[in-house]
Amino acid sequence: MPGKIRTALKVDFDKPAGEQPYLHNRWHPDIPFCGTIKNGETVKIECLDWTGGQIKNDDSADDILNVDLTRVHYLSGPFEIEEAEPGDILLIEIMDVQPFQDQPWGFTGVFHKENGGGFLDEIYPDAAKAIWDFEGIHCTSRHIPGVKFAGLIHPGILGCAPSSEILAEWNRREQELIETTSLPKERVVALPPLPTSVHAGSASDDIKEKVGKEGARTIPGRPEHGGNCDIKNLSRGSKVYLPVHVKGAKFSVGDLHFSQGDGEISFCKEPQLALISIIADFPGGAIEIAGEITINFKVMKGGQKELGMVNGKSPIYIPGPVETQFGPGRYIYFEGFSVDEHGKQYYNDATVAYRQTCLRVIEYLRRYGYNDYQIYLLLSCAPIQGHIAGIVDIPNTCTTIGLPVDIFDFDIMPGAPVKKLDLGSCPMAYKK
Amino acid sequence: MPGKIRTALKVDFDKPAGEQPYLHNRWHPDIPFCGTIKNGETVKIECLDWTGGQIKNDDSADDILNVDLTRVHYLSGPFEIEEAEPGDILLIEIMDVQPFQDQPWGFTGVFHKENGGGFLDEIYPDAAKAIWDFEGIHCTSRHIPGVKFAGLIHPGILGCAPSSEILAEWNRREQELIETTSLPKERVVALPPLPTSVHAGSASDDIKEKVGKEGARTIPGRPEHGGNCDIKNLSRGSKVYLPVHVKGAKFSVGDLHFSQGDGEISFCKEPQLALISIIADFPGGAIEIAGEITINFKVMKGGQKELGMVNGKSPIYIPGPVETQFGPGRYIYFEGFSVDEHGKQYYNDATVAYRQTCLRVIEYLRRYGYNDYQIYLLLSCAPIQGHIAGIVDIPNTCTTIGLPVDIFDFDIMPGAPVKKLDLGSCPMAYKK
Amino acid sequence: MPGKIRTALKVDFDKPAGEQPYLHNRWHPDIPFCGTIKNGETVKIECLDWTGGQIKNDDSADDILNVDLTRVHYLSGPFEIEEAEPGDILLIEIMDVQPFQDQPWGFTGVFHKENGGGFLDEIYPDAAKAIWDFEGIHCTSRHIPGVKFAGLIHPGILGCAPSSEILAEWNRREQELIETTSLPKERVVALPPLPTSVHAGSASDDIKEKVGKEGARTIPGRPEHGGNCDIKNLSRGSKVYLPVHVKGAKFSVGDLHFSQGDGEISFCKEPQLALISIIADFPGGAIEIAGEITINFKVMKGGQKELGMVNGKSPIYIPGPVETQFGPGRYIYFEGFSVDEHGKQYYNDATVAYRQTCLRVIEYLRRYGYNDYQIYLLLSCAPIQGHIAGIVDIPNTCTTIGLPVDIFDFDIMPGAPVKKLDLGSCPMAYKK
Amino acid sequence: MPGKIRTALKVDFDKPAGEQPYLHNRWHPDIPFCGTIKNGETVKIECLDWTGGQIKNDDSADDILNVDLTRVHYLSGPFEIEEAEPGDILLIEIMDVQPFQDQPWGFTGVFHKENGGGFLDEIYPDAAKAIWDFEGIHCTSRHIPGVKFAGLIHPGILGCAPSSEILAEWNRREQELIETTSLPKERVVALPPLPTSVHAGSASDDIKEKVGKEGARTIPGRPEHGGNCDIKNLSRGSKVYLPVHVKGAKFSVGDLHFSQGDGEISFCKEPQLALISIIADFPGGAIEIAGEITINFKVMKGGQKELGMVNGKSPIYIPGPVETQFGPGRYIYFEGFSVDEHGKQYYNDATVAYRQTCLRVIEYLRRYGYNDYQIYLLLSCAPIQGHIAGIVDIPNTCTTIGLPVDIFDFDIMPGAPVKKLDLGSCPMAYKK
Repeated sequence: MPGKIRTALKVDFDKPAGEQPYLHNRWHPDIPFCGTIKNGETVKIECLDWTGGQIKNDDSADDILNVDLTRVHYLSGPFEIEEAEPGDILLIEIMDVQPFQDQPWGFTGVFHKENGGGFLDEIYPDAAKAIWDFEGIHCTSRHIPGVKFAGLIHPGILGCAPSSEILAEWNRREQELIETTSLPKERVVALPPLPTSVHAGSASDDIKEKVGKEGARTIPGRPEHGGNCDIKNLSRGSKVYLPVHVKGAKFSVGDLHFSQGDGEISFCKEPQLALISIIADFPGGAIEIAGEITINFKVMKGGQKELGMVNGKSPIYIPGPVETQFGPGRYIYFEGFSVDEHGKQYYNDATVAYRQTCLRVIEYLRRYGYNDYQIYLLLSCAPIQGHIAGIVDIPNTCTTIGLPVDIFDFDIMPGAPVKKLDLGSCPMAYKK
Repeated sequence: MPGKIRTALKVDFDKPAGEQPYLHNRWHPDIPFCGTIKNGETVKIECLDWTGGQIKNDDSADDILNVDLTRVHYLSGPFEIEEAEPGDILLIEIMDVQPFQDQPWGFTGVFHKENGGGFLDEIYPDAAKAIWDFEGIHCTSRHIPGVKFAGLIHPGILGCAPSSEILAEWNRREQELIETTSLPKERVVALPPLPTSVHAGSASDDIKEKVGKEGARTIPGRPEHGGNCDIKNLSRGSKVYLPVHVKGAKFSVGDLHFSQGDGEISFCKEPQLALISIIADFPGGAIEIAGEITINFKVMKGGQKELGMVNGKSPIYIPGPVETQFGPGRYIYFEGFSVDEHGKQYYNDATVAYRQTCLRVIEYLRRYGYNDYQIYLLLSCAPIQGHIAGIVDIPNTCTTIGLPVDIFDFDIMPGAPVKKLDLGSCPMAYKK
Repeated sequence: MPGKIRTALKVDFDKPAGEQPYLHNRWHPDIPFCGTIKNGETVKIECLDWTGGQIKNDDSADDILNVDLTRVHYLSGPFEIEEAEPGDILLIEIMDVQPFQDQPWGFTGVFHKENGGGFLDEIYPDAAKAIWDFEGIHCTSRHIPGVKFAGLIHPGILGCAPSSEILAEWNRREQELIETTSLPKERVVALPPLPTSVHAGSASDDIKEKVGKEGARTIPGRPEHGGNCDIKNLSRGSKVYLPVHVKGAKFSVGDLHFSQGDGEISFCKEPQLALISIIADFPGGAIEIAGEITINFKVMKGGQKELGMVNGKSPIYIPGPVETQFGPGRYIYFEGFSVDEHGKQYYNDATVAYRQTCLRVIEYLRRYGYNDYQIYLLLSCAPIQGHIAGIVDIPNTCTTIGLPVDIFDFDIMPGAPVKKLDLGSCPMAYKK
Repeated sequence: MPGKIRTALKVDFDKPAGEQPYLHNRWHPDIPFCGTIKNGETVKIECLDWTGGQIKNDDSADDILNVDLTRVHYLSGPFEIEEAEPGDILLIEIMDVQPFQDQPWGFTGVFHKENGGGFLDEIYPDAAKAIWDFEGIHCTSRHIPGVKFAGLIHPGILGCAPSSEILAEWNRREQELIETTSLPKERVVALPPLPTSVHAGSASDDIKEKVGKEGARTIPGRPEHGGNCDIKNLSRGSKVYLPVHVKGAKFSVGDLHFSQGDGEISFCKEPQLALISIIADFPGGAIEIAGEITINFKVMKGGQKELGMVNGKSPIYIPGPVETQFGPGRYIYFEGFSVDEHGKQYYNDATVAYRQTCLRVIEYLRRYGYNDYQIYLLLSCAPIQGHIAGIVDIPNTCTTIGLPVDIFDFDIMPGAPVKKLDLGSCPMAYKK
């Protein structure tokens, strides 16, 4: 008879993440199992927030400015899923995600251009922070007054471990890109294995050294297993069909978000320095939380072939049925094109276009009294809709952002009277 | 007292598009008005399909293979909107869009790699066609059996004319891109003014020559006025806030679609030859129709400033409330990453990622008996959801496609039994 | 190859409804077929408005006051559906419903207490009218300023003819109710066959006389075939599974509505006089139109047994996917209980409760400057949601009405400033 | 700075409900406050399940059969809301509702015809039970295999205390109904104050006696304050505008449901015996739980006048934005009419019609192998849509039930193959 759901992994807030044996920060088949889950079982898994507590619930952005980006991205796992073997699909169903009841808050950060950076850092180079307080399904921020919304809570990262062969292929093709890119050499185009700051769970020193040499970084998602996909709709009720590549699946999960906008725009765009190459993708752009995820696990024997997946590519998923519903007519859509703010034309560059779309929203919301950093933070974590509208009409790619009007306390519809309000500011920090 | 809605422009199916004086195929402020619409008025405007009748309702793809791509993209207009002046916003509300009652069909084409091409033309180089039959709000295709869906009918192109200054700026920056691009010279990166095949409505020969020399091509959307945005949600009930740049607005509309998927993927990716540079963006990827659009026009005096638009950038819109509702759990989402089918790693290339996502859908649907071209056509015109999931996790951009399961006659959910059906083929045509 | 859709029935606006041989106003198996439709075919069927043109597009309610209620409810049909036989299901799919393009208007009426009456006629006894103008999918009324909404257009009546046995059973049980009711005798509780004003299509005089004696009135819906169900969601894209009781099905349809609220409250509650017993249910509460419906017909052989229908009871349906989407948070819900406005407690009377709910909405909207009759008309035809909340908590039944805020030009949310506007009035007419 | 949310009331599972001083089971202005909440504050409030633990998580329905219905309906409260005074509105926002983490289950019961009864007890007189297990947002039942759905979790009862005057009016009008009803005298038409089993929180004996004599029973909702409305959409994110009638509001809440269908049909229809008149409305038809509700409280000074509420009637509410979304085309709608299963015609009786609609669903689902009691239980607690379709077409009222197909593991769409499964049974209990 079913009963209380088992917690398969508990984290420890009094111990450094790097010392907790059920966490890891590389993808590698040799990282030892941290526990076992039955085929068909539902369990709870606790996750740390991605900085291990470096960011405080206060009104200063100094912690964002000075964040130590070598100490990040710890995943809970890997778990052995009984009966799972290569060629199978691990069907996971996300039954719930919750912040810890005694930590009802999260943060969104804009990183300084010289320590992480962000999507708009050429225009907005400084560090900024917003703290969000949760009351049930809703969040509000004393740093961005006038908005309240229900979180579409989800894990930023989940996936099964690569096999040795797949890992080798990842390393081969990413190394090839590094070696053959025509981009300037200061541009970091991929993140090769890095022996420092490795955490391989409860691995022996030998294994840990091997993981450091070969282990794939957790920053990019990858076609063979998913990983860091940051899909904002992978919330409660979603099902994900994950390819299994090693016996027991070695499933891991982490990087929980209370809410995120499409594209997670505020976080680091690209590291400018080789030194920073270890820290490239910081999910500081969502509302970052520690919390607990409840997952049901089922093994589909031979599922990769059944689903038509060639070479184990790629995960598929089905969103849950409980997304926030605003109605299509309750979004204002902004358009952006691949012409930058200096009038420079780019050739179908979706990144330029999306950045312009963000600027259009900033210009629009600025009229109500927000400063630009507040809007930048908001765009990153509120449930905005980011779409590619036209990708082939040379030379202009068109992207759009749908801004839900119902998250605001006041009426932002075009045509409604615009009254400038005193909306304060968010905490900021500057390099000296 | 309101009465029957006035038809402000009727097209003629017995005369070549290039001879009809209320059509044009360039953006230029000197193209004469084809009619006048009052501030506040609602009118109907008829539009030709974009090929002027080259594509037939038959079972051969020869017309697609041999389409004359110099004879395309005729817009209805430009209209004088009374009281509209530079700095204003023209608020248009799309009250309805309908195919002509006696032409209840449309087409989707995949162009041959050497005559137009398409998003996947390196893998699928041949020409293909699907004819869609409409019964009320629904469409079906004898060339892609097993699917039926309600159209989210919309105009592919709408906007107001640029001022002389804005037009000059368009030409400057696009020319600069052509001259400075580091891409191989056979790559067409932008389409400069072209004196051949110009249609400038009822313009005198002098004006027509000027329009040929200066007029902006209709292929790309542009930030100052919108234009060819191909936004699939701009359907019935949508409102668009268009910047006005010339006295009387000079509003034009055309390129109607019965339905389109996000990204309109099947149409021409990029012309390989300078010769084809005149024909780059053909909206053959949607379900292309001739039809009638009903629009209400309202002028917001000083609206650009009121809406915070800097330099008239960019249109904003609010979708209508009557989109098809499938429920979030009735989509299967496929993921694609910037690693191509040969295992080559790209640096955050959303185009590579979106192409991979398309291939994942093709592999999935192929199991039911469709051939790849049928799926390729379907992806282009069915109401799929295309999203950028993660744009900053170097080196992998992740894009997703949500495929609505309820457009299929049979159950395509993962886990449901897969039975291979006889689903025929679509018309194909090959270069000899 | 599919082509233009056939119009299976055209109505004549220059001839009285009673003289058009493809219309009828009784349910009877002997009314002759007016045409034949193939199994699998899609056709268009034209329908008159229910008054045959008595109500004019003007600003007087005299036509409502003086409407001749003996000249109403003509249905288009009955059609022979090939291959349909008793025990089968006729699956109809509503592909489209449209008002006639040259008659882009409809009306909503509140009938006078002494000529038709309505749901609230003890409080609002006079006649009132609102004319609605259509622009594409939207309607507005010069008589109820400040509102605009997309129609959820649908047929009020559809069904197949009863068999002789079913018809006899209808007559038996309804006559039994008339004879055994404990209600006061002036209360009309059911409408028996009536030999006057009979229209039996192209029937011979003998048949017509028989239909007058036995034919079931079209006012009530009935469990064995559906009929006058007035289901507001039976709009474009809906499928209905109709039991077939006679060879060829004898399908009929009519009473088209551009839009309707749940419960269609403004129309006649109950006739006070025997004389009026012939005119009981007038669908004046919706936005009444003449128009054209496009339907696909399919026969499911043996479908009643397959669907578990016992004794052919009752139709089932699946709504179309294109309903207007406002989002759940864009409705204000009002509650009403079975205690009337004089403080009298009723025992779980849902009618009293729903009337109270209506009064709560009237009190709420009155603050903006509407008069009560305007709101009464609006409640009847706008897309409100009417629900039974609690039906068993003695003695109070609770019903609710969800009022969509987005149909108003001004903000009606609780807490938003209330400004009394000049909203005029609707046409009214009074008994002398 | 916000922090952890305060729990304003904790319940005790080791003590009888009747001995816990912060619970009560009557509405009366003299029941003492159990705590104070600030204007603007958000708090958590714990609630017992409505039977105080009589129903067990086991596979026998004996507890349902023998339930002691005199020991029920304890509400948490009443709370003093600072600053609230008569004439104000108490705006509550439901931030979250959760079952207790260590009690992840609930129950649905069908009561025996002679001890509680239910909506269909003439056809289904016996007692039945289903236990539901919760995994995150979902529930499943070992007693009703093949279904799983997300709960739309909500409180069945909430409201502010009546003033003495309002309470007197309630007693007057309900007593008048009892005295003047023309129904047979064994029919309980209302529940007058009852001195036995009174729980008045921490009241003195004098007050408790007074509450027993005058206090309103909690079973019916009432127009002046809401109360037991059982509105299934009053879930997370909903706002309710409650009239305040006494200083400090005296707000109470209870009767939490994990999920409920429209109408909550399985619970007691009407008590047959005076003895049972104390137990009339048992919310056993929902998925009944103990749990915790998080509410934000705001006082709108003078809000009743501002919202146009006459005599404090009636609460209004706005649903939250996170309802489960199935899409309109994923419901099968069943119709029922006011003709009973013996062919007896009723005069516009919505109760008869709704019962017939339930029977149509039972007949439909029975084909898959469910027994009737399983379906009856399911109809009561699954997210079905219950609508009044037509209320004025004499003599037949038409009601509909929309059954969401996506809660089933197998395809129940009409036309899909029907395979009879072994779906077991639910626990049953019979009178000897």
